[in-house]
Amino acid sequence: MPRQVTAFSNATVKRLRSLRDKKARRSEGLFLAEGLRIIAEARDSGRLPEIIAFSAEGARHPLCAEIIAATEAAGGEAIETAPDILAKMSGKDNPQMVLGAFRQPDTALALIDRNAAPLWFVAQALRDPGNVGTILRTGDAVGAGGLILIDDCADPFSVEAVRSSMGAIFTQQVAAARWDEFLLWLRSGAGQLVGTSLQTDSDYLDATYKKPCFVLIGNEQHGLPEEYEAQCDLLVKLPMLGRADSLNAAVAAAVMGFAVRASWRGGAEPTGRPRFVPA
Amino acid sequence: MPRQVTAFSNATVKRLRSLRDKKARRSEGLFLAEGLRIIAEARDSGRLPEIIAFSAEGARHPLCAEIIAATEAAGGEAIETAPDILAKMSGKDNPQMVLGAFRQPDTALALIDRNAAPLWFVAQALRDPGNVGTILRTGDAVGAGGLILIDDCADPFSVEAVRSSMGAIFTQQVAAARWDEFLLWLRSGAGQLVGTSLQTDSDYLDATYKKPCFVLIGNEQHGLPEEYEAQCDLLVKLPMLGRADSLNAAVAAAVMGFAVRASWRGGAEPTGRPRFVPA
Repeated sequence: MPRQVTAFSNATVKRLRSLRDKKARRSEGLFLAEGLRIIAEARDSGRLPEIIAFSAEGARHPLCAEIIAATEAAGGEAIETAPDILAKMSGKDNPQMVLGAFRQPDTALALIDRNAAPLWFVAQALRDPGNVGTILRTGDAVGAGGLILIDDCADPFSVEAVRSSMGAIFTQQVAAARWDEFLLWLRSGAGQLVGTSLQTDSDYLDATYKKPCFVLIGNEQHGLPEEYEAQCDLLVKLPMLGRADSLNAAVAAAVMGFAVRASWRGGAEPTGRPRFVPA
Repeated sequence: MPRQVTAFSNATVKRLRSLRDKKARRSEGLFLAEGLRIIAEARDSGRLPEIIAFSAEGARHPLCAEIIAATEAAGGEAIETAPDILAKMSGKDNPQMVLGAFRQPDTALALIDRNAAPLWFVAQALRDPGNVGTILRTGDAVGAGGLILIDDCADPFSVEAVRSSMGAIFTQQVAAARWDEFLLWLRSGAGQLVGTSLQTDSDYLDATYKKPCFVLIGNEQHGLPEEYEAQCDLLVKLPMLGRADSLNAAVAAAVMGFAVRASWRGGAEPTGRPRFVPA
């Protein structure tokens, strides 16, 4: 049976709240996910929280009640609490009816089976957790296997990244590695490393993408370092028709992800260029 | 000559700081842009701030000094101040060396010349200012004319939206309108209204996009209302290969924007599908 918790000073409340900080996430090995939608997504992907906290409204909701029961049946802890305590845990004025603390998966590169998906995202020094989460979300949409984070990236298990991922944190694999380590791993098997660059004439629509394709996205401010570009098997250019010379990192990942996928569709067409439409 | 300002209580400091609030922006008719890159972008687009505030570092920077001089020559106000005061104005711990208050452009729909560009973004009830700014940034990249904001959207002149736009707030036209008003305007001339939807079998790669093309993006939580979808000339589906049924709004706009642009390129190709690449 779930316990009723009414005090901010309750140990479980404090523990959940601490997970907004990276240090606590690391030492506990847990991360927070908020909202029934994402927690149901987790359950459907075979993941249950180790701790679940919910409001009276959550307890009354059939799907939420089912997940609470499953969490307890699996040995997890369940607490019913007040909306203002939930708000304090999630840091949102407008809290969800439920949140859960999930075990962080192992992010070792060696756990990635590159042949499990034709497409992978690789992000280098991405600093915005919203971008990390959004790339995970896009990865789910384009059937990517996951996201490999290179060098110092925003924590994919931060509340902001998990929120932006809209549940994809549970369906996409996440790995973290230094660049050298990644390159060693990459070159130990099949894989085309594709970077976007202004230093090439290869249009992204004319390129030949090979499976498994690793789409490399650079830091928000600085893009990819030159020596990283030099390691790519293919550099492609996204046409920039305006004054700016770059896209938002999550946008660039998405445009590339959809383009790579599109290039693998159809069959009889002789060219990568979409048809001309007089208009 | 720029004035030296050392007090947080200075009237210009307080006025600039107030522009972080929408009410003040509206009553003043001004908005804030931070950083030399974006302020130089503004200048290159023919826009100078009415007030410019900068650090000693800014005063020493040749390009910054040039823009300060141009601002004063045009009758604007220039103040040199301390980094901590700049930080207070921008709300950032790590302030830029310069920020400017610019006159907000008129956002009347009637000011849009639809034939000035082949592509326009239209956003409905978009709540995240980062998404609004990111769509402006993408609009610049794909040669869009601008962004039309429908119903209650995040303020495109908020600090967050301006920051995310990376200068595109100065190169993209911005309009705001109610849905009925927009439809009346749209139907008074040429224009194809394109929505993304799960309720269609039309793949986004197979569609025929006509100029001027208006790409309609729905609210982050709810997507497009059904009655809005019903008004579209074309509904297309972005394939979703994973568990999720939606993309981040700015990502959806970008994938559509690049796809529409791609469909207009080339000439001899018989199909919208990129070529098949065995891999």
